[in-house]
Amino acid sequence: MKQNEISPIETKRHTLAHLLAAAVLELYPGTKPTIGPAIDNGFYYDFEFPAENRPTDADLKDIEKRMRKILPSWKEVVGKEISEKDVREYFKSNKYKLELIDEIIAKKESITLYTAGKSSNDSAPADENSPLPMPLVGLRETTVVDERVQGVFTDLCRGGHSENPSKEIAPDSFKLSRLAGAYWRGSEKNIQLTRIYGLAFNSKKELDAYEQMMKEAEKRDHRKLGKEMDIFEFDDDVGPGLALWLPNGAAIAEELEKLAKETEFASEYHRVKTPHLAKDSMYKKSGHLPYYEDTMFPPMEYEGGKYYLKAMNCPHHHKIFAARPKSYRDLPLRFAEYGTCYRHEKSGELFGLMRVRALNMNDAHIYCTEEQFASEFRAVNDMYIKYFKIFGIEKYIMRFSTHDPKRLGEKYVNEPELWKKTEDMVRKVLVDSNIPFIEVPNEAAFYGPKIDVQVWSAIGREFTLATNQVDFAVPKRFNLEYIDSDGVSKTPLCIHRAPLGTHERFIGFLIEHYGGNFPLWLAPQQVKVIPIGDAHIESAKKINALLRNSMIRSEIDLSNNGFGKKVRNAKNARIPYFIIIGDKDIEAGKVTLESRDHGYSSATFFAHATEVKKASEYKQIGQMTNEEVVKKLVEEIRERK
Amino acid sequence: MKQNEISPIETKRHTLAHLLAAAVLELYPGTKPTIGPAIDNGFYYDFEFPAENRPTDADLKDIEKRMRKILPSWKEVVGKEISEKDVREYFKSNKYKLELIDEIIAKKESITLYTAGKSSNDSAPADENSPLPMPLVGLRETTVVDERVQGVFTDLCRGGHSENPSKEIAPDSFKLSRLAGAYWRGSEKNIQLTRIYGLAFNSKKELDAYEQMMKEAEKRDHRKLGKEMDIFEFDDDVGPGLALWLPNGAAIAEELEKLAKETEFASEYHRVKTPHLAKDSMYKKSGHLPYYEDTMFPPMEYEGGKYYLKAMNCPHHHKIFAARPKSYRDLPLRFAEYGTCYRHEKSGELFGLMRVRALNMNDAHIYCTEEQFASEFRAVNDMYIKYFKIFGIEKYIMRFSTHDPKRLGEKYVNEPELWKKTEDMVRKVLVDSNIPFIEVPNEAAFYGPKIDVQVWSAIGREFTLATNQVDFAVPKRFNLEYIDSDGVSKTPLCIHRAPLGTHERFIGFLIEHYGGNFPLWLAPQQVKVIPIGDAHIESAKKINALLRNSMIRSEIDLSNNGFGKKVRNAKNARIPYFIIIGDKDIEAGKVTLESRDHGYSSATFFAHATEVKKASEYKQIGQMTNEEVVKKLVEEIRERK
Repeated sequence: MKQNEISPIETKRHTLAHLLAAAVLELYPGTKPTIGPAIDNGFYYDFEFPAENRPTDADLKDIEKRMRKILPSWKEVVGKEISEKDVREYFKSNKYKLELIDEIIAKKESITLYTAGKSSNDSAPADENSPLPMPLVGLRETTVVDERVQGVFTDLCRGGHSENPSKEIAPDSFKLSRLAGAYWRGSEKNIQLTRIYGLAFNSKKELDAYEQMMKEAEKRDHRKLGKEMDIFEFDDDVGPGLALWLPNGAAIAEELEKLAKETEFASEYHRVKTPHLAKDSMYKKSGHLPYYEDTMFPPMEYEGGKYYLKAMNCPHHHKIFAARPKSYRDLPLRFAEYGTCYRHEKSGELFGLMRVRALNMNDAHIYCTEEQFASEFRAVNDMYIKYFKIFGIEKYIMRFSTHDPKRLGEKYVNEPELWKKTEDMVRKVLVDSNIPFIEVPNEAAFYGPKIDVQVWSAIGREFTLATNQVDFAVPKRFNLEYIDSDGVSKTPLCIHRAPLGTHERFIGFLIEHYGGNFPLWLAPQQVKVIPIGDAHIESAKKINALLRNSMIRSEIDLSNNGFGKKVRNAKNARIPYFIIIGDKDIEAGKVTLESRDHGYSSATFFAHATEVKKASEYKQIGQMTNEEVVKKLVEEIRERK
Repeated sequence: MKQNEISPIETKRHTLAHLLAAAVLELYPGTKPTIGPAIDNGFYYDFEFPAENRPTDADLKDIEKRMRKILPSWKEVVGKEISEKDVREYFKSNKYKLELIDEIIAKKESITLYTAGKSSNDSAPADENSPLPMPLVGLRETTVVDERVQGVFTDLCRGGHSENPSKEIAPDSFKLSRLAGAYWRGSEKNIQLTRIYGLAFNSKKELDAYEQMMKEAEKRDHRKLGKEMDIFEFDDDVGPGLALWLPNGAAIAEELEKLAKETEFASEYHRVKTPHLAKDSMYKKSGHLPYYEDTMFPPMEYEGGKYYLKAMNCPHHHKIFAARPKSYRDLPLRFAEYGTCYRHEKSGELFGLMRVRALNMNDAHIYCTEEQFASEFRAVNDMYIKYFKIFGIEKYIMRFSTHDPKRLGEKYVNEPELWKKTEDMVRKVLVDSNIPFIEVPNEAAFYGPKIDVQVWSAIGREFTLATNQVDFAVPKRFNLEYIDSDGVSKTPLCIHRAPLGTHERFIGFLIEHYGGNFPLWLAPQQVKVIPIGDAHIESAKKINALLRNSMIRSEIDLSNNGFGKKVRNAKNARIPYFIIIGDKDIEAGKVTLESRDHGYSSATFFAHATEVKKASEYKQIGQMTNEEVVKKLVEEIRERK
């Protein structure tokens, strides 16, 4: 499916944005509507409300009600082309729309107005309360000074609406969710408008499911669990967007790196290590300066030059490629590094681990010939899918962005044949591997087609985790060359890939995905050993030492807490396994293994509780020898179950 | 032994610096001597030579000869206190000495002149060629305008010379080694002087041994081998002092990190991960700003504040400590990180991997109570020694720097009892553990005693690799606290430790130490599989895959080179093991394992060579099954033999 076809749900959401504006204009006369698009889960519209009459969250229900009241009258949405003069006249009291009109004119595009509400043939006067009852009809002939007409709404728009909203949109399939501030055109320099968000789906059932998911997502919020589980922290003296990984977070990051290293070793990647900064000359060569300087940290003036923190790892890897002469025998050559990059993100856009300023990226660059490209690209995709399996990611899609031949040499590097060839190869690999993907024209990178990998968490939320790019421009800028078998110097293609994205975003995703219940191999604390009484401490130390010898993150609970409290603490800390040791275990020469995920069986609890009290009715649930426990857990960790 | 006692070899070297100046003044009249200390392997003296008469390397032999000619006449070195007026008069034509005199006066110290050469009672006129035959005798009474007297040399000096140089210093125990430029007082803003370096030892035998070692060190120079073995590279666009680790270097670094992680896990350290920068407020708190700003990279002006690249990891670790409330039950708490730090080193002082601007440090901070300090400190020392064993470092010494009670509250934090207590504890641990150490008064850090660990490479060169510090001041500045068992908030002590130093310096050291012949576990390329002919490629692929499945860095040589060349290439690349596969191996269902270190036996070579030619006389040296090879190598790697 190509992305530029608008899906039915998008047209509904878009229509609902208009409906929202219609309701707002009725309830808040004098309000200036600005822009209102469809978004992933519904729609929003940004308004400039009159200073004396602004809605609060409490008013959303009323606006929603008014939307439902208007909806039955919206039997069609009619578009009409209009002249520049007329449209300027029509929106003369709305500076925002006038600004949009300027842009449309500059782009030499045609201007259309869309009207919903009374039929365009219906010239009956509108509600008496409406100060300016002026339907779209006869627009060209009359002077329209405001877009407000009771139940009728006309907007500057490119189209893409429901044909008959009153039929297509179920009145209980949407709701207004919240108010937020939003700068006009997203710039802090502009006036702050009021944004009203709405949720919209195909049915009430879908809406309910979404709200249920969001409620679950709130419980699993990575910022909340991140704090609760001591995973990460921010600090004012360090700076916003610069995460400190506490031991529990570092343990997860280390396990991810271990997975990446093993996987990449098996695929014959070579690890490299590069510094986190470089001179400005590097970023002039790469083309980042001056065009992307505002996405980078400001420079350090040093020894008469400028040094920048790196915003990406590729230039450093290119330098390593170039450090030694290369022949075709060296290709494909794959350099991998969990490299740290720094990006300037506005304070207001920072968000937990999801949007940060320092990121540890599961990066690699594959240098290959054109002949090797398809198999290398397929191997990268296979690696993605291998990872998805490990993490139990069942729903994913690849968003394949291609170039626009009309913009070669301008937005896209002027290599028409290479574009065609690589895009064809990428498309073929995607189709052959049966990977779900959508194709999005005119969104490729400057230097080649790219793939954004979108995944859905266990509770159904969508995340963009990683990007996969083909690059046939930058290697040339760095004079990367290899001597081919015919003795001729050639420039390799480069694939940029980062299947595990960044530690920050991926761990943020995993916290929600697992709801904090990390599988054994990833769990920051893997085992808690719980001796019931002092007599069991020696045995507890023994199994704990055995586990730790196998690099398992095990600890003994030596607190003064009672047995029940110790078990609850282990469960609350979401530790995958706990090992209980009491008299009966010692008698049997065993320990009792319990799992977080199977639930701590009340039988075992009572067995032990009873033991403490009466030493009777001991059911041997999960009793195993030390060696059996170690073997089972080592295997489970190795297999990353 | 306390360091402030001057060792006999130091007095000899110091005396030889005077002797060098005496010889230079005779051969280059008009030269101004400045400063000439003893150094680790000998001595140097900095001179301002007359512009028209400067020595070159070729002249060093003559100066050396003149030194030997003067030496027999130096039967004593006599010191005399002298008044400010007289000494200024004496050195009135030497602005350097006058500057030194200013400093001595400012410090209110007494001024002494030391004279060697003719006895101070000997008032006989000096050599007729000497324009100013003026011995020290009667200095107070006469006007001395120059220090030059044939065979006699007087210098402004604090003493510490051989009592009878003519007897104590063997004429063949020293030599002049080289000329170099050196700025007066080490500052680029000052005039450049000429420095003459000399080597000096107790005997010719020691001198020869040293020169032999330096010759070996040159062969093993980490810059030379680092290039040859593709370990690291510098790049102009990245910047000086910022090492790029090529795959071979990254492999070594990864192995070192793995060792550190395993060792630290066994010692119950927790890994953390911190960003590489922080706001200026962090470094004001830590006390680095403004005092040490010039050792840091310049700031990035960002969001109205300043961000600095971190020059050390401790403040970030302190922040992690402070991120959650702590109780005495949490202590000792050990945070480990292979942290990257950035230091401003002058361009001229950068030196391969030994002095760089970005360093990956095997860092950790141990937070503990006073009661826990001794055992924690001992455990740290034990870890050092464990590492020394792994790396075959047989000679090492700990340089224990203590405070000076007179400078409490000024150079040292004013905690007299804590100083005494911790120094006593450190000393006791060192003595009890039987670790060789020297104690150096008045060289502690501001916040506590420190230990510099000095090791000697296999060829006998000394390196300072790591520092171990006690810190009882900075935790307070960061308000670090734990609730003790009595419910009272207390500040923990902190131990800073980095047994493997930095990747940069440690790998630089290891390159020399092993002469590039890394042991199997550290070798960038561990195994090369060499099929003799095309018929053996399948078997080669099989063993190679088995080895790689066990994470062994093995590769097959599939080049078109002949068998002998393949073996030579593997040996030249210093690959610890190579596996040869020919008809006889396949017949036997085995492969032939050969080791770099046992030398590639000519018997095997001929066996295989013969096989290629005649398929006869095949000696089964090192023939093993695939499984035996994998088992042997996995074990050798795990045990880090």
